[in-house]
Amino acid sequence: MALVNEHFLKLPNNYLFADIAKKVNAFKVTHPQADIISLGIGDVTQPLCPAVVEAMHRAVNEMGTKEGFRGYGPEQGYDFLREAIQKNDFLPRGIHLDIDEIFINDGAKSDTGNIQELIRWDNSIGVTDPVYPVYIDSNVMIGRAGVQEGGAWSNVTYLPCIAENDFVPQLPDRRVDVIYLCYPNNPTGTVITKDELRKWVNYALKNDTLIFYDAAYHAYIQDPEIPRSIYEIRGARKCAIEFHSYSKTAGFTGVRCGYTIVPKDLTAATLNGERIHLNPLWNRRQSTKFNGTSYISQRAAEAIYTPEGKQQVAQTIGYYMQNAARMLATLRGLGFECYGGENAPYIWMKTPEGYDSWQFFENLLYGANVVCTPGVGFGPSGEGYVRFTAFGSHDQTEEALKRIESWSK
Amino acid sequence: MALVNEHFLKLPNNYLFADIAKKVNAFKVTHPQADIISLGIGDVTQPLCPAVVEAMHRAVNEMGTKEGFRGYGPEQGYDFLREAIQKNDFLPRGIHLDIDEIFINDGAKSDTGNIQELIRWDNSIGVTDPVYPVYIDSNVMIGRAGVQEGGAWSNVTYLPCIAENDFVPQLPDRRVDVIYLCYPNNPTGTVITKDELRKWVNYALKNDTLIFYDAAYHAYIQDPEIPRSIYEIRGARKCAIEFHSYSKTAGFTGVRCGYTIVPKDLTAATLNGERIHLNPLWNRRQSTKFNGTSYISQRAAEAIYTPEGKQQVAQTIGYYMQNAARMLATLRGLGFECYGGENAPYIWMKTPEGYDSWQFFENLLYGANVVCTPGVGFGPSGEGYVRFTAFGSHDQTEEALKRIESWSK
Repeated sequence: MALVNEHFLKLPNNYLFADIAKKVNAFKVTHPQADIISLGIGDVTQPLCPAVVEAMHRAVNEMGTKEGFRGYGPEQGYDFLREAIQKNDFLPRGIHLDIDEIFINDGAKSDTGNIQELIRWDNSIGVTDPVYPVYIDSNVMIGRAGVQEGGAWSNVTYLPCIAENDFVPQLPDRRVDVIYLCYPNNPTGTVITKDELRKWVNYALKNDTLIFYDAAYHAYIQDPEIPRSIYEIRGARKCAIEFHSYSKTAGFTGVRCGYTIVPKDLTAATLNGERIHLNPLWNRRQSTKFNGTSYISQRAAEAIYTPEGKQQVAQTIGYYMQNAARMLATLRGLGFECYGGENAPYIWMKTPEGYDSWQFFENLLYGANVVCTPGVGFGPSGEGYVRFTAFGSHDQTEEALKRIESWSK
Repeated sequence: MALVNEHFLKLPNNYLFADIAKKVNAFKVTHPQADIISLGIGDVTQPLCPAVVEAMHRAVNEMGTKEGFRGYGPEQGYDFLREAIQKNDFLPRGIHLDIDEIFINDGAKSDTGNIQELIRWDNSIGVTDPVYPVYIDSNVMIGRAGVQEGGAWSNVTYLPCIAENDFVPQLPDRRVDVIYLCYPNNPTGTVITKDELRKWVNYALKNDTLIFYDAAYHAYIQDPEIPRSIYEIRGARKCAIEFHSYSKTAGFTGVRCGYTIVPKDLTAATLNGERIHLNPLWNRRQSTKFNGTSYISQRAAEAIYTPEGKQQVAQTIGYYMQNAARMLATLRGLGFECYGGENAPYIWMKTPEGYDSWQFFENLLYGANVVCTPGVGFGPSGEGYVRFTAFGSHDQTEEALKRIESWSK
């Protein structure tokens, strides 16, 4: 008799963005004339840059000719892209990676979800709180998260990131086998300094902890002192896997390309204490369950590293960061406590006294016709906050801010 | 302490295609002048058809404009493609699918590898033998395959498909929780009749067995009586998940798009005997660990269903099937026993008396400079066979056959 994986049944039925959509729809039914502006969803809005568009046209043309056609690519990705990553994303910051430490994927969501396959089912995990739901849910599905008791999972250690600790997570007071870190952070938009990140690397080396480091938003870092990669910290090659994405860097949310770094120095233990290298294990995982991402998407990603591509991508990021700056200035001017938004496309705002996340969300929707994301949807420590994203157009963002201004007065 | 998933360590180190490449390279070193023709690898060679190329250019252009840009698509795929599948691949054969039973993916390899996440880790599995390695390896990685004893996995039931049983697998003599079937078959190129497939559906319904049905090669079926989909059999909606791919249908091995059908009638049991629907579980899996395949690839797939697309795709399949016919005729003319090749792009050839798979492979390589795939690489029952693929160009295929002809005389 085929038995179901019952761990799936432990997952809560509510989806944050589905709940938001439901509430927005209810509002629309009663207010059919209202023109709603969403600053809620973490998706980009600006078109792909010309260098990327040209590269994709070229790749499509190749695929339509006998000489240029490419069938299966390497599961690890094409060397032309891996070399561009090596030379542009890491070498300039003093990080030397081998080509075969770089695995091209179809976006960071797949790999942050799949990476837990490499570790034993009963390893304990730690997450910063609030957190990107994929980290926890992918562990729930395999039974690693344990059971849910009062909103928290029994085998998950939550590391609160709140205004009171300046959004800097404290090292856990108990040993944790695997830690998920995401910087610049989704949802809080905050960053981590080299000194703080060094504490985590040292903790990991001391406790034989594995760090899964999500750097999907690294392109938004403006401050040259803030690390773009965990491998800027000595010793990280021995304890960390890092995830990158072109989704936010270059508007690739619909194009699907990113990459994962699994250093060759990285090991985990067997029950007998033998050290096993994770690089060949991930290679085996990808070779068995993945067939590479689209050739056209890989050529698109390569184009980001050309001089024109770099300049065009920087322009779009600058465009979004202008939104972030306007939002920060306006919201703070109105007396709201805001975080993030300086090295990330997210602004994390404390809700005013007397409002929880959902109450503020609904008030803003009905009062200003603006949609934000209730912070509690990202975890218990997100209660009392909402997230605004800088991914809108300038016009829509300005209009939203105007409305918030008149509504809040 | 981070502990490794030790199931990965049970995987054998040898990779079939890596072993082939090694032997071919050794030959090249000693025969630098030789012009080797590969009829070994299951990858297409003909360019994408014009309808697909045009659709991709249009999609790329859209993505470069403010109005046409698309960010995250639905994890389940765009409705335009799901509707095209529903109307073209199923309705004409009397199969009624709901849109949300169709999940677009980045190719059948991902989903045939990931689907086992839905079932309990200790379910037993059955595979036809020889077999596509992903079915077994993905189960090894989670511990479900058990341990390897003399080339076979302890928790896997092997169903031999050999000349003696006309490549029709027998129903297992013990209860098996999950069965993988692939028709037209990779590697044997054989097909299954409706009557034979009905036996499997009835077995599954009686034993509460789940069938994972891989139909990646369905477009090569010429005989109208051979089922293209397991859902042509009454009752299959209650026991089967089906995998499709555009890789072989339309040369999408580098484009990455396919789809999986999870019917709403399909359930598996909890330990308490409760029936759980698998459609929402797969939806949850995909929403958590996948972010949809490239918009451009989905538009490419949609173009296959236009009148021009259909005609062009059929032309390419006809081109490959001409190779298959020529190969069958020549090899049989030389006295070789051949199977498949009539409704599939693969020819499965018995090696002559006294040659095992690898011996024949080496003899063919050194004698005719032609590469085939040793059958034993697909499982114990593949010993004594080799696989030829029809995916070459006409010229290369003719040349290879000429060489085999003079070599074998």
